[in-house]
Amino acid sequence: MIENIITALIITNDVFQKPRGTRDFLPDEMEKRRFIEDRLRETFIAFGYREVQTPTFEHLELFTAKSGEGILDEIYAFKDKSGRDLALRPELTAPVMRMYCEKLKREPKPLKLFYFGNCYRYDRPQKGRYREFAQAGCEIIGYNSQAYMAELIALAQALLKNVSLKDFKLRIGNLDFISYMLHDLSIGEKTRKLMFPLVDKKMFDEVKDLLEEEGFSGESINRLLDFFECKTIDELKEFIDNGQSIQEFEELLKFLEMFDIKDYEIDTAIVRGLDYYKGVVFEIDLPKLGAEKQICGGGSYELLPIFGEKPLPTAGFAMGFDRILVALEGEKIFPSKGVAAYIVPVAEDSLDYAVGIARKLRSAGISVDIDLGCRGLSKSLRYASSIGARNAIIIGEREKRENKITLRDMEDGKQRMVDLKELMEIFSERA
Amino acid sequence: MIENIITALIITNDVFQKPRGTRDFLPDEMEKRRFIEDRLRETFIAFGYREVQTPTFEHLELFTAKSGEGILDEIYAFKDKSGRDLALRPELTAPVMRMYCEKLKREPKPLKLFYFGNCYRYDRPQKGRYREFAQAGCEIIGYNSQAYMAELIALAQALLKNVSLKDFKLRIGNLDFISYMLHDLSIGEKTRKLMFPLVDKKMFDEVKDLLEEEGFSGESINRLLDFFECKTIDELKEFIDNGQSIQEFEELLKFLEMFDIKDYEIDTAIVRGLDYYKGVVFEIDLPKLGAEKQICGGGSYELLPIFGEKPLPTAGFAMGFDRILVALEGEKIFPSKGVAAYIVPVAEDSLDYAVGIARKLRSAGISVDIDLGCRGLSKSLRYASSIGARNAIIIGEREKRENKITLRDMEDGKQRMVDLKELMEIFSERA
Repeated sequence: MIENIITALIITNDVFQKPRGTRDFLPDEMEKRRFIEDRLRETFIAFGYREVQTPTFEHLELFTAKSGEGILDEIYAFKDKSGRDLALRPELTAPVMRMYCEKLKREPKPLKLFYFGNCYRYDRPQKGRYREFAQAGCEIIGYNSQAYMAELIALAQALLKNVSLKDFKLRIGNLDFISYMLHDLSIGEKTRKLMFPLVDKKMFDEVKDLLEEEGFSGESINRLLDFFECKTIDELKEFIDNGQSIQEFEELLKFLEMFDIKDYEIDTAIVRGLDYYKGVVFEIDLPKLGAEKQICGGGSYELLPIFGEKPLPTAGFAMGFDRILVALEGEKIFPSKGVAAYIVPVAEDSLDYAVGIARKLRSAGISVDIDLGCRGLSKSLRYASSIGARNAIIIGEREKRENKITLRDMEDGKQRMVDLKELMEIFSERA
Repeated sequence: MIENIITALIITNDVFQKPRGTRDFLPDEMEKRRFIEDRLRETFIAFGYREVQTPTFEHLELFTAKSGEGILDEIYAFKDKSGRDLALRPELTAPVMRMYCEKLKREPKPLKLFYFGNCYRYDRPQKGRYREFAQAGCEIIGYNSQAYMAELIALAQALLKNVSLKDFKLRIGNLDFISYMLHDLSIGEKTRKLMFPLVDKKMFDEVKDLLEEEGFSGESINRLLDFFECKTIDELKEFIDNGQSIQEFEELLKFLEMFDIKDYEIDTAIVRGLDYYKGVVFEIDLPKLGAEKQICGGGSYELLPIFGEKPLPTAGFAMGFDRILVALEGEKIFPSKGVAAYIVPVAEDSLDYAVGIARKLRSAGISVDIDLGCRGLSKSLRYASSIGARNAIIIGEREKRENKITLRDMEDGKQRMVDLKELMEIFSERA
């Protein structure tokens, strides 16, 4: 049978590689990912959010209903054996809202949920963009004050700070403002759809060209471009004659101050590219990430009507987990990898004693490995250093007889003989 | 736009449910899952294993090469937009070995890897069996002693013990023995394939019927059935005239004793149902789980030749993460859920002070929530109790003026006024 397989292999060798656009995470990388995930989780929980998880695939219609048929181009869709149209989730907000409607809508409000999950996008793989990528995010459902929106933004900041990220830039806007401007300048849906991707990329020269082509007056165009320059409430008031959204925005800024969020920019050109956002939106960039600098985006949105539910104030954000990892590349914030000790029984008749030491340390939650193959001291020390062991525990005839062990610091090579009690103390001090 | 969507909804409402055979995990359940996952991870790490992660989908051929075309019936296969055949992974050993060959084969041996991951099986959903299910598992690649196999079995036991599971049954066998018997009794491949599923389910009457139908002598049949009854090495020696596998097995049992594994049964009827296992195999059952009682299975196997690599001793096991959760249903081992405190500003002008308290507690990693909507004391206390808050922190005019807070124990309703320093001490004592 093995022979048949080997023949098959020679023909199809290239299939035994990971699929294009996906990644394997090796041990060093996984340790970093788990460390970051734990920090983020602690922060979500500190803010009163609770974790949920939804399936990896959903009915395809969930995503087309939310984002339109356009999403089909970049979605992994497939039929199951009963002919149902399924899709690997491209994002997590729609699944979480679907779950809310199925299971949680009777829970007291506000309901604060967070999640980690892999998402899938059939995209041309490029630096920093993968077909399977990890997201963290949260949703708050049913809130009654802009203070919750301020808390949400404070949470996004706290998440980034708690994973030691620095120099990120927070921008806050409100989609009601740009809607007001579109209406005010009689910019219709067709033009809007062409214009928003340009606005999103801050390509204002191209916005100008587009509006000129579409026959808008120089005055209108300048007014819109001036609107995009607004950086204060007072400037906004010159454009927006809508008391309620301005007041709401002023409230938000007051609450942001309460949450000690002072370092942000008002950005009227945030469009989030999605039809279901409305009201306050925000984005956080890490300029050092270059083209893929946006690390977090969110705001208030209206999705419940898609599920036949009455609208409730809902808001949330998604954070690019992979991008956080890229941004922390080279930072010395990760705990040292490797086991606390590699146990080396120098002769086979000390193996039973050595295994006993391993069992006791492991039971105490101390990570140790052991040379069960009795390969000898020098080979074992080389292996210990290759797996990043911080110490070697050397066990020979004398150690076994005296009920002790020899502890060797792998960094400086210093050795000393201690008993198990002392050893435990040494390891728990360091933990 | 929303109107169009609502119309679409009325037609296709049933698609806004999770796909058949999948699950949503709500907050209470997720807390349990993360608690168990953390305990398992600590145990893997204590044994010197390091975590890896592979993509959710792989090239379909990876799984057919490993398990044969038969697996197609139960696999989620799909083509991507370039026509590549992909599959949601049905298990994790093949992906990990694929990753090993792509990235890790030059690492020093033994290489010890563990993982958590969701797997997918197109199966009729039934109690305890889902189309998306979670697995934990590990592989050791390149070992040179049965002591490592004993350590692997000790790890499987430690994992179950460390999540407080009791009353599990460990069975250990060796596929070399049954191979020897098949050869000895001239039972061919066709009969074997019919017989193994029956052996796997311990349906020995049916095995007997099958062999009678196939024309085997009563003597042969009885010899095989007696072989399946062997519970000791001495009994085995009456059937197996193969010095090497018996010696290897004796060694394993000696090493198991070293690892303090005494409570197990020799089971010569373990077949693992898979062609690539060879040598030592083991299974762990939790009888209280009934039909889905097998919670762990593994052993030594030979997969590297599929990837065109020279064979190396490899072994591993998989553990049903979901079944562990089912088995722990109702056990009181999970930490209490809910935030440490729900902060209630009783009037709007104490909101700024209340937010300040929330910020300080959250920065210290203490999980608190806060009524940012100022709904008043009685509504807030009801909400606090609905989210399982252990305390309420009540903040009115007097608290703000005196720079204190009123702490209310949600269980007994007792209240006392303390300052922030005392509050921090109270919470860190309880943590």
